Amino acid sequence: METTTGFDWALLLPFLGASLAAGMTGWMFKPGDWYESLAKPDWRPKNWMFPVAWTTIYILSSLAAARVAAIAGSGQALAFWSLQIALNTLWTPTFFGARRMGLSVIVMGGLCVAVLGMLWTFWALDGWAFVMILPYAGWLSLAAPLNWRIWRDNRGTETLPEGG
Amino acid sequence: METTTGFDWALLLPFLGASLAAGMTGWMFKPGDWYESLAKPDWRPKNWMFPVAWTTIYILSSLAAARVAAIAGSGQALAFWSLQIALNTLWTPTFFGARRMGLSVIVMGGLCVAVLGMLWTFWALDGWAFVMILPYAGWLSLAAPLNWRIWRDNRGTETLPEGG
Repeated sequence: METTTGFDWALLLPFLGASLAAGMTGWMFKPGDWYESLAKPDWRPKNWMFPVAWTTIYILSSLAAARVAAIAGSGQALAFWSLQIALNTLWTPTFFGARRMGLSVIVMGGLCVAVLGMLWTFWALDGWAFVMILPYAGWLSLAAPLNWRIWRDNRGTETLPEGG
Repeated sequence: METTTGFDWALLLPFLGASLAAGMTGWMFKPGDWYESLAKPDWRPKNWMFPVAWTTIYILSSLAAARVAAIAGSGQALAFWSLQIALNTLWTPTFFGARRMGLSVIVMGGLCVAVLGMLWTFWALDGWAFVMILPYAGWLSLAAPLNWRIWRDNRGTETLPEGG
């Protein structure tokens, strides 16, 4: 549990499983007619890029977590990782499931704080782990403004789904 | 970050935030007419007990995580905690949002594995942290069979909500 090189599968698997749980929300709550009908900015990534980006981010951030988890003093880093994965799992049901766009912006804001906390703590523990979460930070720098723009440009059009 | 007594707020807040994210799913996806219409066993807890139990579990398991996070060698324990909070956040949208009862049983199974992993790893690190997750294990020993029974007794009646 205390090695500092390579990957320990017992450490990696729970983080990968947690990321799989987050990713399953995208499979359960898909963009459909409702999402297509929303006003969206031209600079948004193409629809196919989202699952590609998130799959990459989930794998790299799980590998990064397994690296830092093997280092003594990683409690704060893993606390931020836990916050990140909970908010990440919450975002898709909030936006695509409950269609609460305003609330999804708040969840996204919390997610940005969590990833900033990861950047700060991972950097101090392991250079490779830090590099592995840079794509996450990069993607959020697009996704967060996009989320905010979609909320701003579609206020008042929120229609809750049945049971939502 | 390396103290072994008391609580470090910088450690506790991300875990509490993650638990709040999980808890928000219950506020977004509520049991309604659909849930009331399902066949449910007599031994189930009363509806009001669920939020009381989960609030207690979220607070205690966050405190437990903050305790073990301050101990060197807690990587495996926090990996299981991360898995737990992601699956916990996923369960309510799966069941009450997407109304996928069969899938919710699988998510619940993963959640039980994560909490068993927590029992095993927390026990080795800190007696109090172990005690603080016992209510979680106890509640799942009711919730998991209940989830399974509801799925078994209502197969074929799954009606997906609009957009689900």
